[in-house]
Amino acid sequence: MNAEILAVGTELLLGNIVNTNAQYIAKRLADIGIDVYFQSVVGDNPGRLYKAFELALQRADIVITTGGLGPTQDDLTKEIAAEISGKKLLLDDKALRMIEEYFSRMGRTMTENNKKQAYIPEASKVFYNYRGTAPGCAIEMGGKIIILLPGPPREMEEMFERSVIPYLSQFQEGVLASKILRVCGVGESKVEELLADLLDSQTNPTIALYAKFGEVSIRITAKAETEEKAKDLICPVENEIRKILGNHIYGEGDQNLEDVFGELLIKHKKSIAVAESCTGGLLAGRLINYPGISAVFKEGVVAYSNEAKIRRLGVSEATLSQYGAVSKETALEMAKGICIKAGTSIGISTTGIAGPGGGSIEKPVGLVYAGLCIDGELYSVKFNFTGKRQEIRERTVISVLDWARKILIEKLNSGKF
Amino acid sequence: MNAEILAVGTELLLGNIVNTNAQYIAKRLADIGIDVYFQSVVGDNPGRLYKAFELALQRADIVITTGGLGPTQDDLTKEIAAEISGKKLLLDDKALRMIEEYFSRMGRTMTENNKKQAYIPEASKVFYNYRGTAPGCAIEMGGKIIILLPGPPREMEEMFERSVIPYLSQFQEGVLASKILRVCGVGESKVEELLADLLDSQTNPTIALYAKFGEVSIRITAKAETEEKAKDLICPVENEIRKILGNHIYGEGDQNLEDVFGELLIKHKKSIAVAESCTGGLLAGRLINYPGISAVFKEGVVAYSNEAKIRRLGVSEATLSQYGAVSKETALEMAKGICIKAGTSIGISTTGIAGPGGGSIEKPVGLVYAGLCIDGELYSVKFNFTGKRQEIRERTVISVLDWARKILIEKLNSGKF
Repeated sequence: MNAEILAVGTELLLGNIVNTNAQYIAKRLADIGIDVYFQSVVGDNPGRLYKAFELALQRADIVITTGGLGPTQDDLTKEIAAEISGKKLLLDDKALRMIEEYFSRMGRTMTENNKKQAYIPEASKVFYNYRGTAPGCAIEMGGKIIILLPGPPREMEEMFERSVIPYLSQFQEGVLASKILRVCGVGESKVEELLADLLDSQTNPTIALYAKFGEVSIRITAKAETEEKAKDLICPVENEIRKILGNHIYGEGDQNLEDVFGELLIKHKKSIAVAESCTGGLLAGRLINYPGISAVFKEGVVAYSNEAKIRRLGVSEATLSQYGAVSKETALEMAKGICIKAGTSIGISTTGIAGPGGGSIEKPVGLVYAGLCIDGELYSVKFNFTGKRQEIRERTVISVLDWARKILIEKLNSGKF
Repeated sequence: MNAEILAVGTELLLGNIVNTNAQYIAKRLADIGIDVYFQSVVGDNPGRLYKAFELALQRADIVITTGGLGPTQDDLTKEIAAEISGKKLLLDDKALRMIEEYFSRMGRTMTENNKKQAYIPEASKVFYNYRGTAPGCAIEMGGKIIILLPGPPREMEEMFERSVIPYLSQFQEGVLASKILRVCGVGESKVEELLADLLDSQTNPTIALYAKFGEVSIRITAKAETEEKAKDLICPVENEIRKILGNHIYGEGDQNLEDVFGELLIKHKKSIAVAESCTGGLLAGRLINYPGISAVFKEGVVAYSNEAKIRRLGVSEATLSQYGAVSKETALEMAKGICIKAGTSIGISTTGIAGPGGGSIEKPVGLVYAGLCIDGELYSVKFNFTGKRQEIRERTVISVLDWARKILIEKLNSGKF
């Protein structure tokens, strides 16, 4: 069974709003194992809307529309759906009562054209609206189904969860389960290369890669009779992927890099402070995204000037003049310095050339050094990033956090920390 | 002339990502007077992608695709477009060189499959990618045009502005000019209310509002025979809007709040330091986005713990125990403290409850105080934000920066600073 999502509204065609409804519905359909092969958007134009309906009914078993159920003349979705399915529009008493009650709750007067919303194609399954006025419905016609839903996301989502999911589940065989693994430190094409054999050979579960800024997500999706059996299919594939990617996999599901790093610090009671030059606050800002971080995060210093590096972090003038502010040596002294000044067991530092100015042949824009001091032991790493200033700084944050995470795990595993 | 937007990617059909590209392109096409009647989404399936192309080419003069230009086997948009237009794929030397340079800048090894991205349908107009690897292109065929663009929004948007808009403008009658005014400190509906008469009466130029996180953009677009004449149409409307919104308009075009603030500091040679609690580095991070900021930004302190507030900023223990860390009094002492410690003429502080925990009836999640010390004079402001932790922190950064900007301008205008 497959579905097509048809969003109706000129405001979408003009780019005034983003079609988040399509994403919501697509995700929920995927969850219950209904394939979506096409999504479409059409404006409030009767001719084009009719054609879009015809086409969608040719391509899919279920056509789910959003929008065009309002009280105005522009709102035509229901009328066109009735026409195409050969159904009359009949007044639904309960829908009318609910619209009347809605207006009285809101202390507003119901206008005559709101009554239009209570008319439903005959013999269809009505989905009442508990957050607005327009009811939705399902029209069954010769093996195909048209589902009409309101456009405002909060009305649509409530109706989808309350009425559409239960309605659709009667047609479903099998259940889908999926798991997401989150990867940092290797690019999408490298991940694909490493997993090539698995990606080629898998049909159930399937494996899909998604690149996000600085990281890659791997979604493993299995279909089976029960959720448990679907999960059993996922397990060996997940293990195989974990074996190949090792500690490049930093988390699962909705976890972020800072969540994982923060949890690690809290679990092992390790305090941290950061000293930032080129990232200028973004690294601290990212760490503090994690709500529990206050237990271990002591302080951050944005030491953008040499003066601040000397005064706030104890970097030596000799190091700065001999190696420069953007150097391994300065990064190490910054990491060590913030550890000492803040009295923490871990210190991280960044120093680099974010551009657009300030680069040279020896030290080009995008050159970044990071330092890490763990329990007095010092580590450094060098990156060469590309892109604009803001991008270089954000890539630095992700890369440094992931690099520090990997060393921290090693240290913790060694039992000496 | 009309266009259809065809987004390619199974991740869209699965609802893993929202199709923001369609909105971006739709909006920009509307700006330059190209109608969009349909938007579609199709997965990485060759048969269905071919059909979607055929259909779009029947319905529209221009078909603009996003996605499916990556290096992997799944990425098929270019191959299908070449097939449907009867063009061979030829290696584009410049594209290859740019991909090679991209990898070398990133310090990563280019894999064999990345070469695939440098192949372009013969005789097409190449749009080079300055933010990633996949070039785009325009294929002209029998009165129709296919435009292929990469899927990652930041690559697509840069390419759209740099190459696609100029390419499409050759087909347009008349010239469009537009100007963007950037507004902070008033919400979108308030701006709409204030500009209601103008919005209703204008047809050339048109005025469109776009809400972004924490700010509103006003785009004034005029059409005329020449660019100069179009600009002449914009000028009086711009003046009218400026009269209504005053200093809520912080900038123009691509300017960010931090650019404007940074330029102001540099122009007037005013040094700055920041002391952050709830924003934890994000305020410094935002200021340092502005490339020239090193001339005036002295240092930032992320004083997340009370201990750091006392030790690093000189906040008094009495203030912390009497009023709490989240209070006007603490914010003021933090702002004054960082000014003194860093020896700057301006100091900004933030302290608040970003949640999800830590709120109470008296001090709920979302309560934020900011402090500002300019030339020894102290100011404070209180905000009540809603939303998630990350959102509260980011709203704080924008609101505080805008608040400080307005006070700074007043002080500078008074001639006493």
